[in-house]
Amino acid sequence: MSDRQIFLAGYILFPSNHYVGAWRHPYSERDFNDRALFEDVARTLERAKFDMAFIPETLAYKPDFARYGLSNGIKHEPTQLAAVIAGATRHLGIGVTLSASYNAPYHLARTLGSLDQFSGGRVAWNIIMSRGAATQANFPFVEELEREELYDRGDEVVEATVALWESWAADALVADQDSGLFVDTDKVTTPDYRGKYVQVRGPLSLPPSPQGKPVLIQAGDSPRGRRFGAKWAELIFAIENNEADLRAKRQDLRRLAAAAGRDPDSVKLIAAVQPIVGETTEIARARQRFLATLVDTEAAIAFLSQFVRTDLTGLAPDLRFTDAVAQRATDEAAGVRLLDNLTALARGNGETLDTALSLGAVARHFGASEFTPQIVGTGVEVADQLAHLFEAEAVDGYVLSPTHFPGAFDDVARAVVPELRRRGLFRTEYADTTLRGNLAGRPYAHGRP
Amino acid sequence: MSDRQIFLAGYILFPSNHYVGAWRHPYSERDFNDRALFEDVARTLERAKFDMAFIPETLAYKPDFARYGLSNGIKHEPTQLAAVIAGATRHLGIGVTLSASYNAPYHLARTLGSLDQFSGGRVAWNIIMSRGAATQANFPFVEELEREELYDRGDEVVEATVALWESWAADALVADQDSGLFVDTDKVTTPDYRGKYVQVRGPLSLPPSPQGKPVLIQAGDSPRGRRFGAKWAELIFAIENNEADLRAKRQDLRRLAAAAGRDPDSVKLIAAVQPIVGETTEIARARQRFLATLVDTEAAIAFLSQFVRTDLTGLAPDLRFTDAVAQRATDEAAGVRLLDNLTALARGNGETLDTALSLGAVARHFGASEFTPQIVGTGVEVADQLAHLFEAEAVDGYVLSPTHFPGAFDDVARAVVPELRRRGLFRTEYADTTLRGNLAGRPYAHGRP
Repeated sequence: MSDRQIFLAGYILFPSNHYVGAWRHPYSERDFNDRALFEDVARTLERAKFDMAFIPETLAYKPDFARYGLSNGIKHEPTQLAAVIAGATRHLGIGVTLSASYNAPYHLARTLGSLDQFSGGRVAWNIIMSRGAATQANFPFVEELEREELYDRGDEVVEATVALWESWAADALVADQDSGLFVDTDKVTTPDYRGKYVQVRGPLSLPPSPQGKPVLIQAGDSPRGRRFGAKWAELIFAIENNEADLRAKRQDLRRLAAAAGRDPDSVKLIAAVQPIVGETTEIARARQRFLATLVDTEAAIAFLSQFVRTDLTGLAPDLRFTDAVAQRATDEAAGVRLLDNLTALARGNGETLDTALSLGAVARHFGASEFTPQIVGTGVEVADQLAHLFEAEAVDGYVLSPTHFPGAFDDVARAVVPELRRRGLFRTEYADTTLRGNLAGRPYAHGRP
Repeated sequence: MSDRQIFLAGYILFPSNHYVGAWRHPYSERDFNDRALFEDVARTLERAKFDMAFIPETLAYKPDFARYGLSNGIKHEPTQLAAVIAGATRHLGIGVTLSASYNAPYHLARTLGSLDQFSGGRVAWNIIMSRGAATQANFPFVEELEREELYDRGDEVVEATVALWESWAADALVADQDSGLFVDTDKVTTPDYRGKYVQVRGPLSLPPSPQGKPVLIQAGDSPRGRRFGAKWAELIFAIENNEADLRAKRQDLRRLAAAAGRDPDSVKLIAAVQPIVGETTEIARARQRFLATLVDTEAAIAFLSQFVRTDLTGLAPDLRFTDAVAQRATDEAAGVRLLDNLTALARGNGETLDTALSLGAVARHFGASEFTPQIVGTGVEVADQLAHLFEAEAVDGYVLSPTHFPGAFDDVARAVVPELRRRGLFRTEYADTTLRGNLAGRPYAHGRP
């Protein structure tokens, strides 16, 4: 265990993230259509030797999310954003979220495979299942499935995509000018994948990348989602706000991976956190309070509505929270579940949900980010907390959700990363130019398991 | 007409192109998975002030094309290759071919829209219709249509995609930190496109790019294809090997555009050519002969088979060509059509198809590139020929198909482009940073028709 190292990723989530005020922070950049912004972010992460930039996905426009600049309120196609990051870096991994529900395996395999080639083998695919009316309306030709079956189809999509990535042997591309042999076609196989939901013949017209094929990431948290992750994923992304839940989840995933015949160490749990650092503890606390002042009440209610899947917008913010829920929950049971969830969230965070609070107050509390734990303090203090969860085997690493974009990454790079290094928990140099190699801590060699 | 300028694009087609020996040329690069190669190509084109790099597409693996390194024998997803080129340049346009038959409008609009943002407004979409067993087998969930109906669906795909691009007004993105208004959602419309073949609700979560939306390109040559092009395209790509056919096509397209209510000058015909330049006429001719020696007979037969849609592979290369056709044409009429086509091709090129020639000889002649006219000579001589076709109004510009990759672009940049400038036919500086602006010869301004 002594050479176990913390995995660190930066969450490329804008205009805001789990904290709804991010884009309103006075130091936040707002040129979200300028590639130079993302090139800068990528170079910052790489200079600090982060493992990965992590790019989320959504396939639907939500008016409230656009109006208030909530997460993905402006949204580029993830592989295009990834290509910008790939172009500005040479070692940084790039995690790209794409839906297995609304993309054809041939497109998935070829797009991610091409990005993996042009990045020199630094790509990971974060596999998500998608559903919901707004997304479905953009792809009405795709059959909408219930959650369990959604994962059954997802299994087939991943199987087919991996089969396409593996269709060329590592030495199939010859390109011998003298003999005129370009590809040894005997070393190319045709997957001819025929599942219940997915059919694709293949092969691709692409050789394996320098890391063989993209790394797989997953985040599903239902029992079916966890089985899916334990089957496929090398990185599992979690959002939990306390050590006990994280440790339980990590143990469960390792157990499921072992049951699926995999080495549990080949599955890393990476958790979302929001560091808020300052030169002194006082400054960090003051920054935390300042962040809370940027939370717009209406924006926070819209964001909370999405989380609890109950539309609480348009109600008076000073309405008692329980009354707001009673008015809008589809039925009594749904209202109870909603309150239970928020109560558990607060309890996990060492707090109590005061149901006497107003709708606005609860929403602002949530929007200031109860959801993704804030880790507040000096560089030493933040490093202590990150080291603690890691050493307690509650996590294998972190995805940093920036409280302001991209300055929060600079803060962590300068204040926290050196402290993690001092503890021997984070690299000083990359082991490889591929993501798979850096995950293993040694250069990736083709053909090695 | 005096300010009419030649449009120049470089065809990013590898391992080979219309000339099947390209990758075997001793100066040809073969690191087709290395982004640096394409970054270099892009910078070469931009330094010479080319209008555009042009990226083709295929959605199927063809064993012969892989084995012999024929066109698209290795194939990256076009928007990923385009992203590499975008990252290395600031003015060069990027034409990206994507199928309207096998891509959903939401994905098309978002991917090209994101690329258009991150390139600063330099993207063009070359719209193709695709069919055929090999492609269909990769997307069996898409209904395969006959050619006419394929274009009817194509019309809907383009309409829907354009509607998605136009869903945000130019001033919808506010991003005002003080008020907290990120997007003025009153300035976002929901296309809710409902066609016979295509339905998509939208909107995208993206504002218009610096050039409003991507430029449209098309290349279809059937009567239905021409109507489609005259309706949508700002650039029409043609492969014809003689002035008369080019002029007739250009006139027809201008007439069809006018009939569709468009300004004929808003449709530019750009033709494929293969320049072969040398310091002297003798050197250029010697290079042309050298190129012919790199044509492998089997490779050429495979390439010809694709063009005439008749499998002539596996036959003895010394078989008389007419006998080869008789053996493999599906019926007598098909055989006659095939011979007619090749005879017309030869005639257009000022030659005669000697049907007493062997299969191998005809194929080698074709593979050395009868198809895309070779333009051979000194820089002055090549410029004379390009200027002649342009001034005779047979074309508005050219897509250069490289005889060796990417050295052929360097040759043209150094030998031919200065000669075109001397004649006042090609820019010395870009007029704009957007493709649409450079096409018009003046900076693009939002909201201007």
